[in-house]
Amino acid sequence: MDRERSAQRIERDIETLAGPAYTLSDAAIRRYAYTDAYRNTLDYFTRELETLGFEVEQDPVGTLVARNRPKGEPVFGIGSHCDSNRNGGRYDGTMGVVTALEVCRRNAEQGLDLPLQVISFLEEEGSGFGQMLLGSRIIAQRVTEEDLRERFRSLDDGRSFWECAADAGYRPDRWRECAHVLDDLTGWIEMHIEQARVLQDTGNRIGLVTAIAGYVHADVTVHGRGDHAGATPMDLRLDPTTVLAEAVLELERLAREAGEGTVGTVGEIEVDPGIINAIAARVRFSLDIRGPVDDAYRSVARDVAAFAQQVAERRGMTAEYRERQTLPATPMDGRILDALEAAARATGEPYVRMHSGAAHDTMCVADRVPTAMVFVPCKDGISHHPAEEASPADAALAAEIILDAIRALT
Amino acid sequence: MDRERSAQRIERDIETLAGPAYTLSDAAIRRYAYTDAYRNTLDYFTRELETLGFEVEQDPVGTLVARNRPKGEPVFGIGSHCDSNRNGGRYDGTMGVVTALEVCRRNAEQGLDLPLQVISFLEEEGSGFGQMLLGSRIIAQRVTEEDLRERFRSLDDGRSFWECAADAGYRPDRWRECAHVLDDLTGWIEMHIEQARVLQDTGNRIGLVTAIAGYVHADVTVHGRGDHAGATPMDLRLDPTTVLAEAVLELERLAREAGEGTVGTVGEIEVDPGIINAIAARVRFSLDIRGPVDDAYRSVARDVAAFAQQVAERRGMTAEYRERQTLPATPMDGRILDALEAAARATGEPYVRMHSGAAHDTMCVADRVPTAMVFVPCKDGISHHPAEEASPADAALAAEIILDAIRALT
Repeated sequence: MDRERSAQRIERDIETLAGPAYTLSDAAIRRYAYTDAYRNTLDYFTRELETLGFEVEQDPVGTLVARNRPKGEPVFGIGSHCDSNRNGGRYDGTMGVVTALEVCRRNAEQGLDLPLQVISFLEEEGSGFGQMLLGSRIIAQRVTEEDLRERFRSLDDGRSFWECAADAGYRPDRWRECAHVLDDLTGWIEMHIEQARVLQDTGNRIGLVTAIAGYVHADVTVHGRGDHAGATPMDLRLDPTTVLAEAVLELERLAREAGEGTVGTVGEIEVDPGIINAIAARVRFSLDIRGPVDDAYRSVARDVAAFAQQVAERRGMTAEYRERQTLPATPMDGRILDALEAAARATGEPYVRMHSGAAHDTMCVADRVPTAMVFVPCKDGISHHPAEEASPADAALAAEIILDAIRALT
Repeated sequence: MDRERSAQRIERDIETLAGPAYTLSDAAIRRYAYTDAYRNTLDYFTRELETLGFEVEQDPVGTLVARNRPKGEPVFGIGSHCDSNRNGGRYDGTMGVVTALEVCRRNAEQGLDLPLQVISFLEEEGSGFGQMLLGSRIIAQRVTEEDLRERFRSLDDGRSFWECAADAGYRPDRWRECAHVLDDLTGWIEMHIEQARVLQDTGNRIGLVTAIAGYVHADVTVHGRGDHAGATPMDLRLDPTTVLAEAVLELERLAREAGEGTVGTVGEIEVDPGIINAIAARVRFSLDIRGPVDDAYRSVARDVAAFAQQVAERRGMTAEYRERQTLPATPMDGRILDALEAAARATGEPYVRMHSGAAHDTMCVADRVPTAMVFVPCKDGISHHPAEEASPADAALAAEIILDAIRALT
């Protein structure tokens, strides 16, 4: 009964936040920092949380922070983000904040009065400034002042993050104080839609995240020789698409062989000159290699880079490997996981321990606070798209499990 | 001695036509129909040929035709095209017209008075209207009036070919009369730079073209499933780049196996959505499959299409094959080839029979007239580029061989 009421409230919240006041697009959810749609969304959560007796504020750049205890007293953190990608759906991020709100409602209804702090992080998706996890990275101080003043710029008009934040009434000059958002947290749980098909395909309603995958983002550029496609015999060509082809298949083989949740993807392929009747002079392709076990995915990255270079050499070409970015895996806290598992088991509903292949704000919380995440299924794994779909009933189940875990932990 | 004088004249012609009056770009040769640079080039050839006693005219759309006999009398045709691609070099096409001019000079100097007709075809490269072999296709009536009136449009301003030609003082309404350009030809020989590395790599100065390759241009589109690159386990993904990869390697294998000059190239690859952290939902790649033997390259096209479909199916995806265009191979005339070979042998210089992988205007002449082509090396196979380089001495050798062959044939 409780769970059904929770599901109804969650559904109503989601419906409301899909309305015209909360998105910049008719065809998708599109909201990001400092737009009216985003401000209205923060206002909605502010009103709902104030009704429950929470004190709501925003950090110096606009991350929403609400607590039911005075500052300085320990609280347990819950939340996610409520911005979307530019062609987004209703659930990614937002359902996590809505579920945190539902945890607070239940906390009040059941008279538990657990000490809670809700956070809705700014700019997780990077839609405003092309910078993912921006709010939580600022809180974790994983940015520099130069990033904020100069490098990070609005995708809409090219103005700096600094200027945009100041114009919106925030205090980017006080960005270092954002670190205080985590000061009083004894733990942190983020709920999020899974963004993949593991829960759906394995018939589970709840995923208990054991680790957030680390990753290597890199590019391989193969230098061949641009020749006439018709006039150059097979034996005289240096065609870099053949190195691409061998590398794609080797990456697939290596990732499968590595196991332990390692995955590898070639998502970008750029062919120069890229015309039907010319052998490519150059091919660049991206590598996205991830997993919860650092040694496993990192050795796949090393091996596929070496493989591409060997194949290029064998074929008379050269290949360069350049890393764009790498981030280690983030293990979740065992004690919180155990509490979540006990709560999940008590519901009798099917759940599974799994890792998160996607990055989440929780990665930036984990440095300082014991953390965990709870996933709910999303239909066919579709996310970052208007067709994104998740079940309020699953979110209600997650709210129940999270509340029970926090009760056990505090 | 004759050969050296020829080489000097050819070099002077090439130098002149690389001057600022003959190109629209400082950094490359760029000339195409109805521009001043193109008009100046036709004027240059007109003056030089009139000096030799030729009567010079242009067909109703601007192909240059010059003859040393009255209309109605049999003549032997020689020439090429003098337009360039937009980032072109000095030699592609132009050196063929210059060499034809040199054949006419030698014909006069040696007092042979062979009956000759020089042709410089309009718009071989397609730089003006995106239509390759346009002048020769109009002569061969391989276009429709609707093409000329509506479909073919200026890459510069979108106006129709019809309008551009009329504004330049031509008579596109009389395009059917262009067919008469070939009426009096007893044979046709085009000299062209090879545009590949076969002559250079085999140490030959002259290529005698036995056939111009036919081709299949097609696209394969593989439909996978766009998923999160991090969150989707290797076993749950439908990644169309793997089908691309297998097809690229199979195309290479099939083309080698087919032999007989068959070649296959994937020159365009388009990945949707094409971002580093997303498994592609869709990959499209082009196929350019050619050869002088129709059965050989056509079966490679069929086999690689079937292979891509099988691999896609095995991997749980689908693949579509769509042909853009196909053109059969054009065999050259045996009698002209034999005459060229006898003349080449007599020079003592190294020559080789070979096919042309690239398309040429001669394909449009061959329907009605016995034809052949002569290739000279171009450095490192580079063409369609300012770095294009070919030797005036080789062109002079070609002029001597062509003149001797025509003498034997008429």
